[in-house]
Amino acid sequence: MTKNDKEPDAAGTPSDFMVREIDLETGEYTLIMNRSDAVMLGLRSLDRVKVSSGEANLIAIVELTDSVVKGNEVGMLNKGRKTLGVSDGDQIRLVPVTKPRSIEIIKKRLDNIVLTTEEINILTEEITNHRLSDVELSAFVTSTYMHPLTNKEIKDLTLAMVDNGEIIDLDVEPIFDFHSVGGVPGNKVTLLVVPIVAAAGLYIPKTCSRAISSAGGTADILETVANVTIPGWRIKEITESVGGTIAWGGGVNIAPADDIIIRAEYPLSIDPYSQVIASVLAKKKAVGADHVLMDIPTGPHTKVKSLDLARRYARDFMDIGEQIGIHIQCAITFGGQPVGRNIGPALECKEALQILEGAPPSSSAVEKATSLAGILLEMSGYSGDGKERADELLNDGSALRKFREIIEAQGTEIRDITSEDVPVGKYSAEVLSNQRGYVSSINNKSMVRIARAAGCPHDKLGGIVLERKNGHQVDRGDVLFRIFSSNEQKLKMAVTTAQKLSPFQIEGMVLEIVPGEKVIHTVQ
Amino acid sequence: MTKNDKEPDAAGTPSDFMVREIDLETGEYTLIMNRSDAVMLGLRSLDRVKVSSGEANLIAIVELTDSVVKGNEVGMLNKGRKTLGVSDGDQIRLVPVTKPRSIEIIKKRLDNIVLTTEEINILTEEITNHRLSDVELSAFVTSTYMHPLTNKEIKDLTLAMVDNGEIIDLDVEPIFDFHSVGGVPGNKVTLLVVPIVAAAGLYIPKTCSRAISSAGGTADILETVANVTIPGWRIKEITESVGGTIAWGGGVNIAPADDIIIRAEYPLSIDPYSQVIASVLAKKKAVGADHVLMDIPTGPHTKVKSLDLARRYARDFMDIGEQIGIHIQCAITFGGQPVGRNIGPALECKEALQILEGAPPSSSAVEKATSLAGILLEMSGYSGDGKERADELLNDGSALRKFREIIEAQGTEIRDITSEDVPVGKYSAEVLSNQRGYVSSINNKSMVRIARAAGCPHDKLGGIVLERKNGHQVDRGDVLFRIFSSNEQKLKMAVTTAQKLSPFQIEGMVLEIVPGEKVIHTVQ
Repeated sequence: MTKNDKEPDAAGTPSDFMVREIDLETGEYTLIMNRSDAVMLGLRSLDRVKVSSGEANLIAIVELTDSVVKGNEVGMLNKGRKTLGVSDGDQIRLVPVTKPRSIEIIKKRLDNIVLTTEEINILTEEITNHRLSDVELSAFVTSTYMHPLTNKEIKDLTLAMVDNGEIIDLDVEPIFDFHSVGGVPGNKVTLLVVPIVAAAGLYIPKTCSRAISSAGGTADILETVANVTIPGWRIKEITESVGGTIAWGGGVNIAPADDIIIRAEYPLSIDPYSQVIASVLAKKKAVGADHVLMDIPTGPHTKVKSLDLARRYARDFMDIGEQIGIHIQCAITFGGQPVGRNIGPALECKEALQILEGAPPSSSAVEKATSLAGILLEMSGYSGDGKERADELLNDGSALRKFREIIEAQGTEIRDITSEDVPVGKYSAEVLSNQRGYVSSINNKSMVRIARAAGCPHDKLGGIVLERKNGHQVDRGDVLFRIFSSNEQKLKMAVTTAQKLSPFQIEGMVLEIVPGEKVIHTVQ
Repeated sequence: MTKNDKEPDAAGTPSDFMVREIDLETGEYTLIMNRSDAVMLGLRSLDRVKVSSGEANLIAIVELTDSVVKGNEVGMLNKGRKTLGVSDGDQIRLVPVTKPRSIEIIKKRLDNIVLTTEEINILTEEITNHRLSDVELSAFVTSTYMHPLTNKEIKDLTLAMVDNGEIIDLDVEPIFDFHSVGGVPGNKVTLLVVPIVAAAGLYIPKTCSRAISSAGGTADILETVANVTIPGWRIKEITESVGGTIAWGGGVNIAPADDIIIRAEYPLSIDPYSQVIASVLAKKKAVGADHVLMDIPTGPHTKVKSLDLARRYARDFMDIGEQIGIHIQCAITFGGQPVGRNIGPALECKEALQILEGAPPSSSAVEKATSLAGILLEMSGYSGDGKERADELLNDGSALRKFREIIEAQGTEIRDITSEDVPVGKYSAEVLSNQRGYVSSINNKSMVRIARAAGCPHDKLGGIVLERKNGHQVDRGDVLFRIFSSNEQKLKMAVTTAQKLSPFQIEGMVLEIVPGEKVIHTVQ
């Protein structure tokens, strides 16, 4: 068990049991006990016991059985046996202990009582150390959904998550960072923003995630050409020498409590507002960011559905950022259709490289990336027009050179990479328009479902290339988009999905052209 | 899987896997899958899959591992293997399926939306069939705590829990029942109320529970002399022929959803108001009760702490009872100190028998039992004074004869039982007063902790006999109570606990004698 854990009090007398190996792994320490033994010890399902063998000990959560283990035996899962160094037939000693202190803290939340800094520290520490059962975690998550945390509580939670994880401490400053709240497909802009601002001399140790419900996270995208699993000390080295990284967040142990909390949010697909903010800011604080630009894509089929909500996020990000010593600016960006043309890991990487090479197949991705990079440059004190400077760094090849430096530092087999080096799925199909008119909308969620049917994110070579976007004119029989896959069967599934979902809406006349590429509201 | 289950929709393509046996048992069906396979299928922890082998199939909840099972293998726990009839190395087929319908229903609750009857039916059915994970169950329970169910929802939940369980359908009528909300130690009155009213000709198929946090539930108490695990058909037979039963509720499958919900309430020790009502009423409805008397012990160290809360319970029990066709009366009883003298399974059984034999060692237990039995008699239409009639049935030996009939029908090795037949723990110790004065209070919770330290409820022969109660005069060195145990070590622990907790408060002069034995407020 972790040494820092405050020991819970014994709540009963010790008893000796024999270990039975159970080949299973859970996040928390679990102990399987026969129901009759549990009655004797006054234990119920989900109670805690301290389990000791010699000097080693741990706190486990009790699960009961009538059949799996007999009396005087306890079933121990892999993690617990390893910690104690015991195996089948060994003797261990159990003593019931008091519940984790978090239980009373969570109950306070259920009673709508605002938590103190210390209470949030205890809660976060116990979550990090897998001391809470799913029932308890879910009660906390549910309470934050039904009764959101105050900004003060969010601040405390953010700092507690940072403290209970790895911290990357760079010897340079100031540190910049960038984060997109997500939910819009094709959003490969991180692969452009990071090399542009690093080419301008900014330090940006960017960590990013893999796809959860999307067709590809930034880590999946870059992984099609480079290593993204980079330990903390190496993120520091690369950032200090090259200026930036694009590393998978799962490769470092920053704010691990966040992953545990998110697991409990997933079954109900709830994304409590306060947790979104704490989650993002903890990851930025852990890399020592001084200035952060937030991209908040807003639109009907994205995570942030209304401008009001986007503004609320912006305000609270900035407010809490200030409280934890991070200067934050927010760009509310148009999320009404996919960004750029390509969707899916390799296809998005290819498009980013095409843009870096100066042969942009899409204006929206370029516009968005240079606008965001421009804001970061201005945040760094650049006195001219940031976007113009970003365009220059893109057009003169500096950003491409920096991208190559970054991936070579992270590890890649490809020297002087070009967009031609990025493979795509060998099977493809075209989806055609069955009418004439103008594209009036493209459903983000449907595009993601089609890409996932084609194999994304697991099939890194699968995905979609859009041939038409909002406002474009189409004729009957024109190609709307192409689907790629490594697997012929999955390609067929994706085509069927596309036919069923019909993600393009085409109108006979243009009612209103949504100025997708241009809308960047910045808040500072 | 249960045939009545509506099938969820497939949410992916089928894949074949090899079974790996994992010797473990959980309430719901659990499937252990390698993380890489899960990514390929687009599955996350706590997602659902349909698992089939030939014609047999079930819906399982996915848990991920990096190590326990390899790719192309899935770990299956005992229950799932049994249902499918598969073992190590067998081939099974998986297809991701949509989430249980309850997820959207629980999310509505989190958004404070009142659920429809149909939604509550679906939720209860899926809870009963172990379709929900702990995270989901906990979110529901937490929501009922933070935002209580309306009486209409409680009614729907009650009826749904009844419908999703065993029903005991008696061929006689009317059916009476009795329930104590609990929380006060020594409350053996059920062992008196049931034989008294059955002796008067009432039908009372009483089910009762084992100890959870107490020193002994009614089932534990009666089990010291008789069988209490009685199947539903036999509860029907005994009630129809003898007039009453005192059966362990866990021996029949009535309202099983309730047990599953209670398991999720336990870790946070929350006891949501609405769930208490639904839980009690479902058990009464499932035995076909027409008239129910509720005992609501009220006092600072009981479950119901104030008269206001007791009245609220009474009102809602009656309101919802009426909606589901049960006529309910409530007795708000004094819960400020233990009922009677004895605490602990065998000791409480012994005291009940002493009362039935007409040699009462305590007036409070007699008073409470005959008052409650009297109310039930009046509910049955008895036109005289119900309590007087109850006293007669007790004093003329009718209740003792009926008690013997009941336990002989349930199964006992003791013919013509007397209080002398009930054994008590062979080790005992006296706890003495260290001052002179009057007993001003006895802490219920402390008495329970002492009894549990002595081995209750597992040690059925352990417990406490009170020699003094509220208002009694004591001298220095007088015996306040005796502790009994089957185990010398545990007796010592109990004495230490008693010294530490000091459960008796003794004042130099009487400020106010709480009229404990007399206060029965009835509400009808």
